[in-house]
Formats: sequence, structure tokens, C-alpha cells
Amino acid sequence: MDFDLIREIVIPAETKIVLLVMDGLGGLPHPETGRTEMETAGIANLDRLAQESVCGMVYHVGIGITPGSGPGHLSLFGYDPLCYRIGRGALEAVGVDFDLGPQDVAARGNFCTVDEGGLVVDRRAGRIDTDTCARLCAELRTIELPGAELFVEPVREHRFLLVLRGDGLSDALNETDPQQVGVPPVEVAALAPEAKGTAGLVGAFVAQAGERLRDHHPANMVLLRGFARWPDLPSFPDVFGLRAAALAFYPMYRGLAKLVGMTALPTGPSLSDSLAAVREHWGQFDFFFVHYKATDSTGEDGNFEGKVAKLEEVDAIIPELLTLEQDAIMVTGDHSTPSTYRAHSWHPVPIMLRSRLCQPDSAEAFNERDCQKGSLCLFAATEIMPLAMAHADRFTKYGA
Amino acid sequence: MDFDLIREIVIPAETKIVLLVMDGLGGLPHPETGRTEMETAGIANLDRLAQESVCGMVYHVGIGITPGSGPGHLSLFGYDPLCYRIGRGALEAVGVDFDLGPQDVAARGNFCTVDEGGLVVDRRAGRIDTDTCARLCAELRTIELPGAELFVEPVREHRFLLVLRGDGLSDALNETDPQQVGVPPVEVAALAPEAKGTAGLVGAFVAQAGERLRDHHPANMVLLRGFARWPDLPSFPDVFGLRAAALAFYPMYRGLAKLVGMTALPTGPSLSDSLAAVREHWGQFDFFFVHYKATDSTGEDGNFEGKVAKLEEVDAIIPELLTLEQDAIMVTGDHSTPSTYRAHSWHPVPIMLRSRLCQPDSAEAFNERDCQKGSLCLFAATEIMPLAMAHADRFTKYGA
Repeated sequence: MDFDLIREIVIPAETKIVLLVMDGLGGLPHPETGRTEMETAGIANLDRLAQESVCGMVYHVGIGITPGSGPGHLSLFGYDPLCYRIGRGALEAVGVDFDLGPQDVAARGNFCTVDEGGLVVDRRAGRIDTDTCARLCAELRTIELPGAELFVEPVREHRFLLVLRGDGLSDALNETDPQQVGVPPVEVAALAPEAKGTAGLVGAFVAQAGERLRDHHPANMVLLRGFARWPDLPSFPDVFGLRAAALAFYPMYRGLAKLVGMTALPTGPSLSDSLAAVREHWGQFDFFFVHYKATDSTGEDGNFEGKVAKLEEVDAIIPELLTLEQDAIMVTGDHSTPSTYRAHSWHPVPIMLRSRLCQPDSAEAFNERDCQKGSLCLFAATEIMPLAMAHADRFTKYGA
Repeated sequence: MDFDLIREIVIPAETKIVLLVMDGLGGLPHPETGRTEMETAGIANLDRLAQESVCGMVYHVGIGITPGSGPGHLSLFGYDPLCYRIGRGALEAVGVDFDLGPQDVAARGNFCTVDEGGLVVDRRAGRIDTDTCARLCAELRTIELPGAELFVEPVREHRFLLVLRGDGLSDALNETDPQQVGVPPVEVAALAPEAKGTAGLVGAFVAQAGERLRDHHPANMVLLRGFARWPDLPSFPDVFGLRAAALAFYPMYRGLAKLVGMTALPTGPSLSDSLAAVREHWGQFDFFFVHYKATDSTGEDGNFEGKVAKLEEVDAIIPELLTLEQDAIMVTGDHSTPSTYRAHSWHPVPIMLRSRLCQPDSAEAFNERDCQKGSLCLFAATEIMPLAMAHADRFTKYGA
């Protein structure tokens, strides 16, 4: 929905909204039972909540489109993920909890192996371990560039994050990864006139990196991809008039929340930790985004029973969550991750919303089949926030 | 969906997609039984397929909009029919299997009757028979125009196709049909500066046509409508990365498929003929559009029982079609043609899609009432192709 329209109809209120996101929530039937993970799990509390909610199915980018974590969450936060794109470098920064700022250009780096002639022979440097990666990053961090600050952060194995910070930097640069072996790294070049200075800086970084890594075979060169600036997104608190807090243990999701201006509160790995933090900060915020990761990880591992168990773990905490008496609570996911598919998928995701202003529909349980019968039907996840705002009495009418 | 986005996420795969289009599929209840054609027909194979599919209802242009065959099919192929328009002249060309090219301007022609003063007295020349039309077209074909090639093809009764081929032709011309009798044909004129040359050519054609037809009362003049160029559509094989074949016996549908870059394979009038051709070319293509006309013709004739019989004819061939073990199969229509309405209509059309990655929903039969209960709900037909691409594992995820 148009943010200008939202700003126009937002009104102040004392109400509280909770958005519980189970990552990779939706699934597919188990070939033996014909039941999905959600249909298999014993989730009586979630089922009862569904009976008191309006239910439906959401897609995050478009019909048939599998969302990455970035687009999936942006959509849940009300941002059209086709309009607001987060470049790979920026997402990588977010993923290692690096506080990307408006003066920064980030890139994803790979350590790689080049032969004596400078030709790439392994684009991943034999997947060096993360400790080695950290040591080499420390080495690269000593490179000095004229007029720009430099950050080099290890990610995992051969992957690192490069950030340049300075005035007038641009991300209009080509990638240096040739995407094949037997050829030299691609020279960095400006794709727009305003990127000439940045291209010079990156070129100098690559040259010096090559020198410093010379004796560190197999990690004796770097490749850079996905140059991206800070994705200057409209502020969620501004647009919706909500003091917004994020409870997410994984850096990627905490980072995504911070990119839209939410306050990322400290939390531990379990949902209980997040719930405790919500309770602690209940008076200071109007909106709480609570992220739960394990439903996705188990799905990606192809661990049907594991995902079922994780759903039951979430279910166990629901009664306590409801004691907060939030005005609107929504439970959904950022995309489906069917255990039988072992990956993010395009299948729409169940959603339920309970408020004192909703008319419960014919969904009698919280799963794909029941939510398909819900009164919200199949709709775009970007409409979730407007719906929540309405149910929390935070929108005035449009037009007289 | 945005074709740029689709191009961005398309990945290569070995999978096969079949789209079976029953023209004019949807219907309305018979006043005596309260059951539609689809609900009346014995279509156990299609019903079983529906039980294994995701089902829904599609609209092709918009809610309440009755699609012509062009927009209906464009929408099924993923093209927004409100963005991509095929001018009437171009559609007429397609309908007589004329291979319209990028240098061509086509128009729909009517033979008409003018009186001695040159006033139109019958805009359809008493609906002369098709043989007469063909003879007169042969006569007009001898007209010579400076700098342009000329094609005149009979269509049916008083209708013919005019195509001019040459450099720099434009279709920005007014129609010469006055849409009423008692007035002379409208002089052709350029509606844009670049159409001046073409207007001159068309004017010369009309003048010479008048001379040659002088003694052929009642067909003693021509009226021209719907000047249209080749509708330079994005290539379906390019956009979707699919080697695409069309199995359509009727020229109009074969032509529409060719306009989007599909390969029209030779086929006979029956669905068995098309199926044999699909089987023969199975290895050479990734996507097969199979068109079946008789469900529309019987609907337009108001022949309820006939349409029921044609549905059953299609049903009989389904088991054989499924032996091809396509990765995704879709069955739907390009619009509804209720027998009780005797015309194309705006009613949404049932659709089902089966793949190994779909979760069957609560539709238990293939008809309007059951598909309304399907998990795809009511959606735009332009989303069918993205959905099929996802189910055939031909899309990567969007965003990281």
C-alpha cells in the first residue's frame, strides 16, 4: 500500500501490535501421511488462536515467486519488495550485524585462489575455515585508502564483507568475480560517471589485497560482488506512527529490522528469551516484531519431524504471549520452507490475526488447509500491516 | 507480472509444462437442473486430476471484463492484455494464418455497396458469399502501389484482409468505414506525421479498388478498419526461457501463439491429433500449449448438451495426456462461454495445476463451484505462467 496514504490516515493510539514471524512457516504434505508439518504438529494453542482470528494465506513478492529473507521480511513490514531492493552487499552487512550507514558502500567478498599467471583457479579458495578467514580479514583491514575508511569483516569460510565509508561513494561498479576459473579477476570499473572515484578506491584495495595475500595460498586473492549502498528505506516508525521493536536473535533479521528503523532489542536464542524481552519493554513500544528461526532451518534440512517439533515449541509459548493482552496479534511467516523441498518456496503462507475487532471465520486450525478457508483469502503480505493498523484502531477513515 | 523480474529469476531446467486450454470453458447453470455444463458432464478423469491439483478461478482482463480471444490467450501466456494490445487488423491476419511481419500494416476490409452518388447503402454488400469474396480479392490483388507490396486475403462472406508491406509504414490512419449508411466512405488520412506516406498508399488502393469493383454490385466498394502493425510482443521463449510449442488447429490460435514466438506445430482437428503431435515433439520443447476449440463453439451455439459432450471428449483423452508425465500440467480456458448466454462472457474460468510440488486443496471436481473452493482463489490469468514456472522448478528465489 502507498505509504503516503498510510501517513495520511494514521492516528495516534495506545494500542499494542505483536507480529510473530515463524521463518519458513508453510510446508507441503508428508508423502506418507498427506499432512503438512503444521497439520502434523500438536499445536492446540495456535489452533485455538486461529479459531478466534481472521485467517488467510499471504504471498510476499508475487504468485509463484520464492522470496529471499530480505524481500520476505520487507513485505511483512509493509514495503513492496519489488520497489525496495536491498543489494547483496548491504544484506551481507546486515547479516554480520554491521551497522551500515548512508556514507557506506558494501560488497560481498570471496577469498579465492589465483595461479602464478594471475588466473583464478578456485573461486572459493578451497573453502578455507572461518578462523583463517578472520585472520586474513585482519590483515586486509590494515590496507589504507586515501579519503575512505575501510572495514573488512569475516562472514563464514571464504566469505567476507567489505565496506568503504566516505563522501560521495557510489555502488555503480561491476563485479570482479569472473564467475568461472581459468581467467583473471575482472578489473573493477565505474558503471556510471559518479562512480569513478569509488572504482579507483576499490581497484587500489584489490591491488593491495593481492600483495598482502601473496603468501597465503590458497587464499591469495579476493573477488568482490554485489556492491550496494545503504538502501535508504522509509522509516517504519515514521510511516506507521509506531514505536517499533524487533526481537530477533539472528543478525540478518535484526539487521533487516534496523534497516527500516526498528529498535533491535537484545535477546537470546530462544523464543522465551524474546518473550521476556517483549515483556520487559512492553511500555516503551507499540509494535513488536518477534522472529523465530528454527522452523526455517529444520525445513531447509529436510527435517520434517524437526520442523514439527519446532512448531510445537512455538505453540507452547503462545499462552504466555497472549497474557500480554496485545490489541492485535498476527502469526505468519516470511515464506514457506517445505521440509520435502528443503528450500524456500513460493507456496503461500498461513496467516492469522486476532483482535477484539475481528470476526472469526471458518478456519478451525492453524495450517495451510484451514487458512485457505479463511476470510482473508489469498493476499499480498504488504497488506498485513495496514490490516493490523486497522485492527489496532490506528487508522482513521479515508475520505469524508 | 513484470517480464524484467521474470527474466531475472528464470533458471534453466529439464522440466516440461503442458497448458491445455479449453476455449470458452466456463459456463452457467442449466435453468432446469441448476448445474453448469462442467457439472453435468461425466468428466471423472478431469475430476480426479482436480483432486490432485491446486485449483482456483481466473479472470483474464479484469473483473467484469469479457475477453476476446486475443486478450484471453495473451493473458494465459503471461502478457497483461491491457498493456499488450493486438490491433484488429493484426488479429484478422492471424485469423487467416497470414504471417504478419514487422514491415506490415494490416487492416480489416469489408466489401460494401455504394450508390451512384458514392454514398454507402450497405456496409456489408449484402453479405456476399465467401467464394465471391475470394474472387474479388483476387481482383484487388492485381492493384499495384508504388513502393509497397500488397496482400488481399478473403476472410468470410464480405470480410477480407488487406496487408501493405514496405519500409516505414505506419498504422496511424483513420478508418474509412463511416459506421452508417447514406454517407460516403471516410477519406483515409494520417493521424500522425509519419503516416502520411501510408495514407497516400491506402488512398490509392481505395481509389483503384473502387474502379475495379465498379461492375461488381453489390460489392462495388471497400471499407477499411483497424489499421494495425505487427504487435511487436516480447518473445515468450525469451522471457520464460522455454522452448515453446503450440498445438492449435484453428488459425487464430496458432497465429496468436506465433505472435509471441511459439513454434506452431502441424496438427489435425481433434485433440488426439494434438496429443500425437505433442508426443512426437516431446523432446524438442519444454512447454506445450494445446488448444481445444469445440467447448467454445458449442457454447456460442447455445448447445448445452453439445458442450457437455465436448467436455467429455476432452476428459477421455486425459489419461493418455498424463502418461507423458509432464512436471506441471494446467487445464483452463481463455474465457467463459456459457451455453445459456451464447457468447463469450466475463465469468471467471476454472483452473487446475498439478505438479509434484502442489498441495491438493478442497476442490473435489473440475467445475466452477469446486474450483471456487480451491486454494488459488480468484486470480489474474497472467499469474498462471509464473505459477507454472515455480512448480516446474524454473524460477530461483527473488532477493537474498
